[in-house]
Amino acid sequence: MDKKSEIAKKLLPVMDTMELLSGRWRIIIMTALYVGGTMRFNELRGNIPRITGRALSLDLKFLEAHDIVSRTIKDTSPITVEYELTDYGRSLDPVFRALTTWGQKHRNRVMRR
Amino acid sequence: MDKKSEIAKKLLPVMDTMELLSGRWRIIIMTALYVGGTMRFNELRGNIPRITGRALSLDLKFLEAHDIVSRTIKDTSPITVEYELTDYGRSLDPVFRALTTWGQKHRNRVMRR
Repeated sequence: MDKKSEIAKKLLPVMDTMELLSGRWRIIIMTALYVGGTMRFNELRGNIPRITGRALSLDLKFLEAHDIVSRTIKDTSPITVEYELTDYGRSLDPVFRALTTWGQKHRNRVMRR
Repeated sequence: MDKKSEIAKKLLPVMDTMELLSGRWRIIIMTALYVGGTMRFNELRGNIPRITGRALSLDLKFLEAHDIVSRTIKDTSPITVEYELTDYGRSLDPVFRALTTWGQKHRNRVMRR
């Protein structure tokens, strides 16, 4: 295989993943649900610094459409809407962990400057 | 530690990493350099489907400013400008691998639908 096709072959899955995760918030929403478990909209919003309600709402719809987040309506009064990661969403665990580990190192490096 | 501060503590490093990687192209440029090694601008561009010259140029400057990519000017005629990952950029290896592995699974899943 020549160099160019080797690069293309490796880039495609990364492009697929980034297509899904791109936008600053999506992976942060997923990480919040990963760490915090099932949450209501406002609870989730309160846990993510600086996110707007609109951004959170749009990204939750996107993640729901891609079977990464599930939305459950509970028959309480008033009704409660809860969000959680699907099993498929939880399969992103190695991605979360790699981002966390590298982010901690990066933060330490920036602090030392 | 309560649930909210636990979530915040875990989110910060992920937010740092995504701050650096967000935008669809940055991590793709980094993966291309990771797989392909040192490359000239046009070579790099030719290896990344659909990227514009402007997007590539802006992201390379950003990655250079963050010490992830280095730019070397070679005294050829005409001069050659080459890009490669720094050691620090190469430390993102576990992130590339996690994104690649998950992306391959995701691609298989979408294909099966």
